Amino acid sequence: MSTAPLFTEIEASGPTQVPGFQATGVGCDIRNNGSGRLDLALIVADHPCAVAGTFTRNAVCAAPVRLCQEVLAGNHSVRAIVANSGNANACTGPEGMADARRMQALAAEALGVAASEVLVASTGRIGRRLPMDKVAAGIQAAQRDLGTGGAHGTKASEAILTSDSRPKRVTVRIATSKGAVTLAGIAKGAGMIQPNMATMLAFLVTDLAASAAELRTLLQAAVPSSFNAITVDGDMSTNDTVLLLANGASTVGLADVREAFAAALQHVCERLARMIVGDGERITKVVELRVTGAASTADAERVARAIGNSLLVKTSWFGSDPNWGRLLSSAGASGALLQEDTLTLSYVRPGAAPVLAFANSRGQDANLPQWKAIVSEREFGVHLDLGLGSGSYRLFSTDLTDGYVHYNKSE
Amino acid sequence: MSTAPLFTEIEASGPTQVPGFQATGVGCDIRNNGSGRLDLALIVADHPCAVAGTFTRNAVCAAPVRLCQEVLAGNHSVRAIVANSGNANACTGPEGMADARRMQALAAEALGVAASEVLVASTGRIGRRLPMDKVAAGIQAAQRDLGTGGAHGTKASEAILTSDSRPKRVTVRIATSKGAVTLAGIAKGAGMIQPNMATMLAFLVTDLAASAAELRTLLQAAVPSSFNAITVDGDMSTNDTVLLLANGASTVGLADVREAFAAALQHVCERLARMIVGDGERITKVVELRVTGAASTADAERVARAIGNSLLVKTSWFGSDPNWGRLLSSAGASGALLQEDTLTLSYVRPGAAPVLAFANSRGQDANLPQWKAIVSEREFGVHLDLGLGSGSYRLFSTDLTDGYVHYNKSE
Repeated sequence: MSTAPLFTEIEASGPTQVPGFQATGVGCDIRNNGSGRLDLALIVADHPCAVAGTFTRNAVCAAPVRLCQEVLAGNHSVRAIVANSGNANACTGPEGMADARRMQALAAEALGVAASEVLVASTGRIGRRLPMDKVAAGIQAAQRDLGTGGAHGTKASEAILTSDSRPKRVTVRIATSKGAVTLAGIAKGAGMIQPNMATMLAFLVTDLAASAAELRTLLQAAVPSSFNAITVDGDMSTNDTVLLLANGASTVGLADVREAFAAALQHVCERLARMIVGDGERITKVVELRVTGAASTADAERVARAIGNSLLVKTSWFGSDPNWGRLLSSAGASGALLQEDTLTLSYVRPGAAPVLAFANSRGQDANLPQWKAIVSEREFGVHLDLGLGSGSYRLFSTDLTDGYVHYNKSE
Repeated sequence: MSTAPLFTEIEASGPTQVPGFQATGVGCDIRNNGSGRLDLALIVADHPCAVAGTFTRNAVCAAPVRLCQEVLAGNHSVRAIVANSGNANACTGPEGMADARRMQALAAEALGVAASEVLVASTGRIGRRLPMDKVAAGIQAAQRDLGTGGAHGTKASEAILTSDSRPKRVTVRIATSKGAVTLAGIAKGAGMIQPNMATMLAFLVTDLAASAAELRTLLQAAVPSSFNAITVDGDMSTNDTVLLLANGASTVGLADVREAFAAALQHVCERLARMIVGDGERITKVVELRVTGAASTADAERVARAIGNSLLVKTSWFGSDPNWGRLLSSAGASGALLQEDTLTLSYVRPGAAPVLAFANSRGQDANLPQWKAIVSEREFGVHLDLGLGSGSYRLFSTDLTDGYVHYNKSE
């Protein structure tokens, strides 16, 4: 007897793979460089959608973030997302908030829906006003170009990119006795890895029939171990936004597919998060950090973030140098409860047995050739057990390269 | 009527400028590369000294740090400091602690004092055992070479260096009716800026007559705004150690020069801290960050450290790019209480009027050429007022360069 899969990942072309969603991306020269690059995305539902979202906790948060929070606080259905790249509309004062509202109103007018049904997102330079004439023209053009084909979804995924080297899309399908449920996600950027190009954006759409409260619960369960568990440079953007829209077109309710949908959402979020960290600016390595045996989950996270954001650790990874002394020093400086004589550190090649680097208060120098080989890979794992309790945390991090410094040293 | 100076800074040659102290530095090849580099320092007092110290708060702290803490906990007088560079004796387990004790005992034996009167410090690679035969030979050689000349003090200041490009020495003299009091400090390194070369060390000696309790109070007042207010890469070392020894040879008591000595100690600590940050690894700029108007001092420090350790801020300084959006975003992500519409950000050329970059929720774009000129200097200031309360903090930071990444990418 075979076990049916909970869900299947299919080749991804974006939000138009979900019945009842149109999309597109157009170029309206928000960067003012005549490049013709796509920079305005529109995602539109044929029917009202329930929605949930999570946002940056940065106290200096951008106007579009505050506007989305306002829409979600209204606790009503939504119909569209309009998003631009090239300008974050952050640190722009009351004028910036007015611009975000105008962007919302222009999209609503073009689509024939209420302004309060439109979500707005921006990513790009901080501290500059949006070129509203270009945004207005872009919204008009996008409305005319809306479609349900794969190319339309792809264009939406491309229009939200800033310094990303490639678009990020994941789509999964869940088979049910009432027919299929589809969940499609697109994303861009990683934290503040970009120069002024703030932001991680992720837009997830599905034809599941679910309430906003149900979506909130699902999203809150999926985000901590996916989008919140990656770091490139430790900076938190002014614009980070994750939105989940459900239009109900499948007529399949959450009760019918609860386990499968939760797993599918977790999968889509984790895959997008991995794509984001793997496309970190000028990185050469992705490292999966696992901290276990901590006195609490918070302590485990503290240690993982201290290691994953340490410049000395990240530069040593760039040099393929298995410098466990720096890792232990970062862990010790994290503020978490730990003691040297219960620490165990291992390096892990995916799919292979861990190789001990530090245990019983001593470096395991005999294994040096093996650590060195593992740290020379493009992807590897580090496992630090604190030997104190049951708190654990997993974080994906990257190396720090001279390329990053060069890329970010000026705008 | 002229006001007499509280103290006078004199040309510094190290601890031997203080009556009653001998010193030297010798090379015993702890790095095992035959370079002949000085790597073992000995500072010896002719008479018992009162002592105070401050140490790293890293939970993974090196054996010599724990040994110093043990000596200080004994609350008795001390006679000597023995310190080596090239090996941190950190993460070395019970054997490392035994090595530190052996180093202490060897120095005590050579000097004819009790082991509990000797303080031990190490800086260098983490995770390797000290080469005790070389350390023993070095201690013998140092004992034979002890002297009171300027060249002897200079050698001590050189023997503690790791990746520093130059020794760091500051000496001040206080004139009193009972004669002069001298305070001499030497220091090395900055935080964990070095590869495995952990550590900030500072050894301060004086002929003031003061109790350990008095020295503790003085040191606790001087360290927060000096050694604790600098950052190069945000990493806290396993070995950070500041020691203050007073041999009483001047017969001038603290009551006679309380204000002058406190000011002198503050000055010496701040000057050494500035030297450390200015000699940060491969840096090209030193930035004085002032945060004012915070709801609390803790919040002000949080904001200053978030800015001063942000990779995006530090790389933009490297590029002489006045990227205030990154500064505000880092401040917002710090967790401190703040709101965009009360923030005021200025760039400051030393000795000149501040130039506004952000105020009243808006970038002050008209001043862009002036910011750009200031951020292009080797030293400049940044002042962020949160507009909320009276909490303030000052932090010295540096840029982040491709040179740092290259220097640290392998051992």
